[in-house]
Amino acid sequence: MADIFERLVKNYGPIGQHRERAHGYFAFPKLEGEIGSRMKFRGKDVVVWSLNNYLGLANHPEVRKADAEGAEGYGLAYPMGARMMSGNSNYHEQLEEELAQFVSKEDAALLNYGYQGMVSIIDVLCGRHDVVVYDAECHACIIDGLRLHAGHRYVFKHNDIEDFEKQMQRATALIEKQKAGGILVITEGVFGMAGDQGKLKEIVALKDKFDFRLLVDDAHGFGTLGKTGAGAGEAQGVQDGIDLYFSTFAKSMASIGAFIAGDRTIIDYIRYNIRSQIFAKSLPMAFVIGNLKRLEMLRSMPELREKLWYNALKLQAGLKKRGFDIGNTDTMVTPVYMKGGVEEATAMVMDLRENYGIFCSIVVYPVIPKGHIIYRLIPTAAHTDADIEQTLTAFSETKQKLDAGAYKVEAIPDMAEAR
Amino acid sequence: MADIFERLVKNYGPIGQHRERAHGYFAFPKLEGEIGSRMKFRGKDVVVWSLNNYLGLANHPEVRKADAEGAEGYGLAYPMGARMMSGNSNYHEQLEEELAQFVSKEDAALLNYGYQGMVSIIDVLCGRHDVVVYDAECHACIIDGLRLHAGHRYVFKHNDIEDFEKQMQRATALIEKQKAGGILVITEGVFGMAGDQGKLKEIVALKDKFDFRLLVDDAHGFGTLGKTGAGAGEAQGVQDGIDLYFSTFAKSMASIGAFIAGDRTIIDYIRYNIRSQIFAKSLPMAFVIGNLKRLEMLRSMPELREKLWYNALKLQAGLKKRGFDIGNTDTMVTPVYMKGGVEEATAMVMDLRENYGIFCSIVVYPVIPKGHIIYRLIPTAAHTDADIEQTLTAFSETKQKLDAGAYKVEAIPDMAEAR
Repeated sequence: MADIFERLVKNYGPIGQHRERAHGYFAFPKLEGEIGSRMKFRGKDVVVWSLNNYLGLANHPEVRKADAEGAEGYGLAYPMGARMMSGNSNYHEQLEEELAQFVSKEDAALLNYGYQGMVSIIDVLCGRHDVVVYDAECHACIIDGLRLHAGHRYVFKHNDIEDFEKQMQRATALIEKQKAGGILVITEGVFGMAGDQGKLKEIVALKDKFDFRLLVDDAHGFGTLGKTGAGAGEAQGVQDGIDLYFSTFAKSMASIGAFIAGDRTIIDYIRYNIRSQIFAKSLPMAFVIGNLKRLEMLRSMPELREKLWYNALKLQAGLKKRGFDIGNTDTMVTPVYMKGGVEEATAMVMDLRENYGIFCSIVVYPVIPKGHIIYRLIPTAAHTDADIEQTLTAFSETKQKLDAGAYKVEAIPDMAEAR
Repeated sequence: MADIFERLVKNYGPIGQHRERAHGYFAFPKLEGEIGSRMKFRGKDVVVWSLNNYLGLANHPEVRKADAEGAEGYGLAYPMGARMMSGNSNYHEQLEEELAQFVSKEDAALLNYGYQGMVSIIDVLCGRHDVVVYDAECHACIIDGLRLHAGHRYVFKHNDIEDFEKQMQRATALIEKQKAGGILVITEGVFGMAGDQGKLKEIVALKDKFDFRLLVDDAHGFGTLGKTGAGAGEAQGVQDGIDLYFSTFAKSMASIGAFIAGDRTIIDYIRYNIRSQIFAKSLPMAFVIGNLKRLEMLRSMPELREKLWYNALKLQAGLKKRGFDIGNTDTMVTPVYMKGGVEEATAMVMDLRENYGIFCSIVVYPVIPKGHIIYRLIPTAAHTDADIEQTLTAFSETKQKLDAGAYKVEAIPDMAEAR
């Protein structure tokens, strides 16, 4: 019989295979100092493009004050129970009410973490006769949620409405054949890798043609898109057509936790039946208080969103002007597509970090096809013109080196921290 | 075609069906004031038996100080990235090292929440040829983790070693037939509902007879059992036989987060491949700092564990002396088994809360068979002799009323909060 562990450690996976040389540098790096556009990496100052601190709230003095006061007043343990059993409070309910109102829904249910919140949502909504139709590029938490679903699922090509219709026809036919079940459609407000918005408007318009409920994960759109910051549904004018609106607090809210909003009856159903909330601790009070403060600022300080967009558009215009391919992002998420091998990408990242003071995330094979490199830049309201200029210069110069073959190295150098 | 939402809201589920009369009282109650043995419920003082604050750390002055200082120093956002991408810190690593050392393992990986941590562990360990053999009363997070597993699983009757052997024979035969895969056994150190320890000693002894790896969820045993508080494995003298030791921080640590400990090679594999950690934010720094403090106290203050056990044994002896059935708990978790209908149980809980100042959790049909009632009392180091005496008196008097039929009411009264 095979030993499970022995088999596993023969292949540490796409990133783990490089851990002997990469740990602490390419993987599990430590960004030190206050969260902001400039932090320390291994003692060096770097401009950071890797944190989803879109509105710069993480270290805003008012947020820091609320966080400190919440923790001082309640500690980090309270209320210390699953929400349904012993983990409820007036503040938890207040946050739910304010979130619901902000995204124009009747009710909202708080979730203790975005990932496990979403993992349980499909489960609580769908029985084995129900069919899920979802976008191919949905986030890992949606995919894991789908894996808990015992019924059928049809995936449509990313943002491809023609294929969406085709999958809806298949789903509809299956349900007619089964004589039971309904359809749940899942997409995202903003796809976090490529930065393109989900086609919410087109999907909502198809409610005339197909019967379905629509669940939108707007993790990146919440607080960044729309006239009031209420997200991709507001930006596309179809918030009413979204039956369940989900967002984590991990991006523009610079916190943890999440919420799901919709009609009162279905939110109440979720509240009383969602496993990851019934069987796990409630969001700690200090986060609830911190999130109330963040939500208030998100609503009342449009200048934060304006600054984010000023920075995002400046960065993107600068990249495009310099000939970089940033794909079809229509949000602040800024991917930069290049061509090169894993070793070249590695050498380039090191040059960026060590010599240009630029820290950003990179995606290479086997996560994406061989020979491709994607940098992912996350502009925030905390970035400055100087940060952007420094970055544009760094990208121009390193790209020239890349194209000239200067990063062709034989193997990934040993950059690991002592462990 | 059926509408998913319409179908769902026809039946709000076992607890949700009572929400119109129960919300805010039987479900989603608010326990107010500082966490301790006495708190406020709807303005009244109650002795609280519903929080897993085993060592009384939630409001210990040193813990509160560490929590406040952590949040003041770092806010609640830092480090604001998935651990692998941008969410690592020296403190995260220090906590891992200290946890590993404390539970006598080579290495430990921090997890951002117990529930989603466990949900992903089976997934990261097992391929479709691997077989999971698990105890029938494993916690919901293990069950949801199993639901993500594409391979076979065999459940053994709760703590029934004869049945465990039978299932191991089936699993072994299947793997021999498949000519691929291995076996992962999952049980708990302490079963949180009935309070009985998992039969770790007996299962570990069977490693001579069967080939398998053993994963133990010791959520309730960590900090409460064993000579040093290292848990059920230490208590039963078989910590070395546990290949992967898991605990949440949500019980004796009075916090959130979790960890998994084992040999360095497998922990490193998990660290680089576990989906709920790769695709979700790292445990916030304030919690890491708070957990370092809690762990230090848990190790250096055995008097907290002694007080917990003094209280648990006093409560359990008192209940037994008064003729109550507390089942076969051999830990501090104290269930009290009674007979009665849902309405009777409801009236009894109200009497306990309103007239005796006792707040404890109750489980009734349909979660357990009709006609049965289980109270679940969680003693902690924070309880006093007076708390225990008041509770024993209350249970004696209300039990007499129950037996005399005094709680026979026609329907659950309307105790809901205005919503």
